[in-house]
Amino acid sequence: MQIVIIGSGNVAYHMAKAFSLKGIPLAQIFGRNENELKKIAEELNLPYSTERLKDADLYIICVSDHSVEEVSKMITKKNCLVAHTSGSLPKEILSGEYRKASFYPLQTFSKSKDLEYEKIPFFIETENKEDQKLLSDLASVVSKNVMESTHEKRKYIHLTAVFACNFVNHLFSRAKEISDSQEIPFDYFLPLIDETVQKIYEIEPKMAQTGPAVRNDVRILQLHEQLLKDESLEIYKTMNHSIQKMYEL
Amino acid sequence: MQIVIIGSGNVAYHMAKAFSLKGIPLAQIFGRNENELKKIAEELNLPYSTERLKDADLYIICVSDHSVEEVSKMITKKNCLVAHTSGSLPKEILSGEYRKASFYPLQTFSKSKDLEYEKIPFFIETENKEDQKLLSDLASVVSKNVMESTHEKRKYIHLTAVFACNFVNHLFSRAKEISDSQEIPFDYFLPLIDETVQKIYEIEPKMAQTGPAVRNDVRILQLHEQLLKDESLEIYKTMNHSIQKMYEL
Repeated sequence: MQIVIIGSGNVAYHMAKAFSLKGIPLAQIFGRNENELKKIAEELNLPYSTERLKDADLYIICVSDHSVEEVSKMITKKNCLVAHTSGSLPKEILSGEYRKASFYPLQTFSKSKDLEYEKIPFFIETENKEDQKLLSDLASVVSKNVMESTHEKRKYIHLTAVFACNFVNHLFSRAKEISDSQEIPFDYFLPLIDETVQKIYEIEPKMAQTGPAVRNDVRILQLHEQLLKDESLEIYKTMNHSIQKMYEL
Repeated sequence: MQIVIIGSGNVAYHMAKAFSLKGIPLAQIFGRNENELKKIAEELNLPYSTERLKDADLYIICVSDHSVEEVSKMITKKNCLVAHTSGSLPKEILSGEYRKASFYPLQTFSKSKDLEYEKIPFFIETENKEDQKLLSDLASVVSKNVMESTHEKRKYIHLTAVFACNFVNHLFSRAKEISDSQEIPFDYFLPLIDETVQKIYEIEPKMAQTGPAVRNDVRILQLHEQLLKDESLEIYKTMNHSIQKMYEL
């Protein structure tokens, strides 16, 4: 089976790397950004192109959601399978006469950070059982955690991930902004952050909540508001309001 | 040195346990809630009382911020050292003629969750060098990470911790609410959450940001808003706004 990966960003890089490490041959990595493409191709020893898309049996589109449709139109072949890796788009966004699929890896990808691919859950949706088996078998070479999923469910998986990952990381950014402003090393907070995550392996997050909002410690809440401004103050108020609503305080 | 711990909550329990595990004798654990107190005293084999506070050289007050002042008035002894464990209160909140101190462990404490005490940073503030040495030596038996800290700095340490821990845990609660509503096991998200934290050991959180807001993927942001309501929708909008401000999108 000839496989082409389209894209040169974080997902494309890790998808290509995950396959390469398991000895799954890739016919090509294709994209617009020659610089990035070249780096990936050289590291993983793959053919690449910014101009001529190779003939293949499977194309995996790893580009930003807003580019998926446009990129999918470049595939003019009919007898092939095309999958995108978006958490939120339906497979029908793919625009061509080929068979369509979604191949969604639930993880946060940065090029500079190595990953344990076998722990990544893959959610797959296809038009027929043969394609489901094909993509499941492929994902199973990389990961121990491969599942079927409808578009409806996948949307909510992605939304949950935005809260549990993207927003969590942004809280780390805002937290670091606060500690940096007082020349407090952010390293001090790493054991606390580790423990915050370790806890939810053992306790429901709702039961693990600590801090001034859940204690309804009005004096501290007011003090903190005086120390904050702009977006951090908005976050502070919104999060506390949500905590107090959840616990009916 | 006779040490008494005051309180029967999460911090009191772990403070008593950390000392007990290292063989530091505690003269008493004192508090209002007899049920909780009895459980701790029996587990750690300590004398306890809800009525008669023992004479001691050091009292460590481990109660909610809004109760610290009131509780501190119960200590009528003069020649002793009294420390509270609050992240936000000044040591001067302690109301008595004894020597005053702050003894702040930066961690999230739940009784049902074991902790590695040696990784917990302790921040100490006292009235004089002798007390500083006394409390630093004591904390150093438990932890490898003991520091001096002013009240001014400690306030910001606590505030940073609220963002990096309390709010992060609340995002997990709201995330789980979303996945529960669609019968999606929250376990699916644990590798993602682990990776979100692993990343900040290697990459600045600001550089590690992923997701639709930082990609300015308006279509996905609108789709997600349609799937949310109430507090989760408010969080969604506030966090995205803050992300877009940070990256000037």
